[in-house]
Amino acid sequence: MIKVDLSYANLPEDLESYKDEVAKIHETIHNGTGAGNDFLGWRDLPTNYDKDEVARMKAKAESLSKEIDVLLVCGIGGSYLGARAAIEALNGLFPTNKVQMVYIGNTFSSTYLAQVKEYVKDKEFGINVISKSGTTTETSVSFRIFKELLEETKGKEVAARRIVATTDAHKGALKTLADNEGYEEYVVPDDVGGRFSVLTAVGLFPIAMAGIDIEEMLAGARAAQNDYNNPDLDTNDAYRYAVARHILGKKYPVEMFVTYEAQLRNFAEWWKQLFGESEGKEGKGVLPHSGVFSTDLHSLGQFIQEGSKVEFETVLRVVKPQLDLTVPSDPDNLDNLNYLAGKTVDYVNKKACEGTLGAHANVGGVPNIVIDLDELTAYSFGYMVYFFEIACALSVYMLGVNPFNQPGVEVYKKRMFHLLGKPGYEEL
Amino acid sequence: MIKVDLSYANLPEDLESYKDEVAKIHETIHNGTGAGNDFLGWRDLPTNYDKDEVARMKAKAESLSKEIDVLLVCGIGGSYLGARAAIEALNGLFPTNKVQMVYIGNTFSSTYLAQVKEYVKDKEFGINVISKSGTTTETSVSFRIFKELLEETKGKEVAARRIVATTDAHKGALKTLADNEGYEEYVVPDDVGGRFSVLTAVGLFPIAMAGIDIEEMLAGARAAQNDYNNPDLDTNDAYRYAVARHILGKKYPVEMFVTYEAQLRNFAEWWKQLFGESEGKEGKGVLPHSGVFSTDLHSLGQFIQEGSKVEFETVLRVVKPQLDLTVPSDPDNLDNLNYLAGKTVDYVNKKACEGTLGAHANVGGVPNIVIDLDELTAYSFGYMVYFFEIACALSVYMLGVNPFNQPGVEVYKKRMFHLLGKPGYEEL
Repeated sequence: MIKVDLSYANLPEDLESYKDEVAKIHETIHNGTGAGNDFLGWRDLPTNYDKDEVARMKAKAESLSKEIDVLLVCGIGGSYLGARAAIEALNGLFPTNKVQMVYIGNTFSSTYLAQVKEYVKDKEFGINVISKSGTTTETSVSFRIFKELLEETKGKEVAARRIVATTDAHKGALKTLADNEGYEEYVVPDDVGGRFSVLTAVGLFPIAMAGIDIEEMLAGARAAQNDYNNPDLDTNDAYRYAVARHILGKKYPVEMFVTYEAQLRNFAEWWKQLFGESEGKEGKGVLPHSGVFSTDLHSLGQFIQEGSKVEFETVLRVVKPQLDLTVPSDPDNLDNLNYLAGKTVDYVNKKACEGTLGAHANVGGVPNIVIDLDELTAYSFGYMVYFFEIACALSVYMLGVNPFNQPGVEVYKKRMFHLLGKPGYEEL
Repeated sequence: MIKVDLSYANLPEDLESYKDEVAKIHETIHNGTGAGNDFLGWRDLPTNYDKDEVARMKAKAESLSKEIDVLLVCGIGGSYLGARAAIEALNGLFPTNKVQMVYIGNTFSSTYLAQVKEYVKDKEFGINVISKSGTTTETSVSFRIFKELLEETKGKEVAARRIVATTDAHKGALKTLADNEGYEEYVVPDDVGGRFSVLTAVGLFPIAMAGIDIEEMLAGARAAQNDYNNPDLDTNDAYRYAVARHILGKKYPVEMFVTYEAQLRNFAEWWKQLFGESEGKEGKGVLPHSGVFSTDLHSLGQFIQEGSKVEFETVLRVVKPQLDLTVPSDPDNLDNLNYLAGKTVDYVNKKACEGTLGAHANVGGVPNIVIDLDELTAYSFGYMVYFFEIACALSVYMLGVNPFNQPGVEVYKKRMFHLLGKPGYEEL
């Protein structure tokens, strides 16, 4: 399903020299003896997931899809990016599904929220509110506004049927509210951090609402769990990626995640959170950056090719496109494009990729790691998620930091709460 | 309209010491004596623009808007990002305009193009094809596909009325085709590079099609042209920004452009091309990066706060939001949010920004340049475009490179053409 090609990576060190270290960290991950080991739930999730909950999600998605046209997915960070990444990757940017996804709960932009309100006010909409504590400020502000709108326009009973809460299993503001109101409830597990949560209800319910087969996605992840439970660096491609980026990260402060499919722009955002938030602590880490080529070659290509040598690239290449088209012939050929007539557009895309790899790696001196994904399906998406999660765990342990916490995220919140006069934050 | 606040920038050098250099480069820009001086058309454009063409664009936008529901904007890089940045910034992400913008011509993703084709095939659509040469490969491939679709479904006569060509005034493939077919034509000036072209027909026609007042936008740019024709670093805020980023760029390899409005995500993409493509040559330049906060604080915030110190931030703050909402009160207050009840969402957004500036600059040691824009209107957008253009010119001249060329963009194209077997590219 996934192959890692290091032929454009120009690694200054041999992967082999990391073999023992990798095998050791593999044991640490699988024995749960490393830092942050109370957040290793993602590791066995594709096998251990709650089957009853998945069945409930599928049933609810089926019934709710018949009732609404828009689902407001109300969450931020890990409670947002995974679902969006999956839905756009699999359904594209012009989906024909009945239920449209609109993402709220991730911003304090009043203009954005007011425009969404205007957009949905005469539509049939529901809300999936996703927050472990139920007190995440961005999410709570949005939820108050849109819950009020839904209750005012449809009444409390209909609203209660159309609101789904994904939250803590036992405690917290949202859990209490959901119990009181009789919302459908799903669980954010205690041992899975936000950025690793796409294959929990956090991601899976919106994904199911988009008409995607979530059991297929879990099956793909399960295959990856099996394939990558392998300490051997020679044959574990997730670890080969992790070690290659570790080696390049010693020399380059930035890693640019590149795809050649517009529908993967938000998958890159998910990847950025996964690696950036896992790695960026104690003054360490490679800054995650991203682009979609060839689009962004016409904006950032000049810099990558000839500017300061700040970054290496990791290119995710989808071998088989979901859809293809043929370049039409034109008898006049004013644009001199007839040399491509009859060729498929994906053929051109692949040659653009190959040409760029040569241009960047061989001419520009920018190392490129290439990750080939066979195709974009629910199954392969699940597989790929697990690939990057296990690669991330290894890579971050190699750096010597805890991959699973995010202490720095609180700093801006505390200052914001102080400025907003939130009780308990009187002192800075 | 714009104020630059350096109180969070912690500049290690004094701006004052650059006063003479700035005054000298100001003369270079205005006398046209620097490198790349054949591409200085953007400088006087807000005054010198072709009034007849603007009148023609307004008239065509009015008539074409009555006939179509979707405009396919077919261009890449500078022939794409400016229009998209403006339209999203001003109309938001859920626009209520009649004509929807769909961007093609910027990708070889077969899935994307096939999905757009499916999306528009039963709709009334037109095409604005934008390419100086008419042979830009991404743009030509898309144009062939959608021109064929339009002619097949509506006939050649209707298609000719619904296709608008923005291209060279005198020569090239698209100019010839447009003449032959009788398309409405607008001009890509010879002396304005792609990334500086949003206030030419390249950007203005799609912007007019989105119902935005392009003369107001030009008036805003004209006000900026007047305000920033000022060699004095003490009072020229565009130059203060340019020098501040120059100083920080000596220490940090990456500049992150931050906004707090989702509708500005693609303005950041425009900014990235403007600075990255202007600066990134001869092994120099600050890598442009971007984010929308507080959204991306929940993915990249950890890294910025506590990860390796790779970047400084430039925060664009919109003082007065286009729309606002009030946080509702809730008698149960389970989410503990009643301390915000009755406050506006934009008030919370501003406190999030202030808290983050303190968290990043004072706690995290990440310098922040703050740019305050009074509001988001056609006028202020034009003003802001000119602000960044003149700041870019100064900043890049300070680095000692030509701000107006992009030789490196050809490298991937040549290799791609070779791989595709394009005549004339047999040898690599």
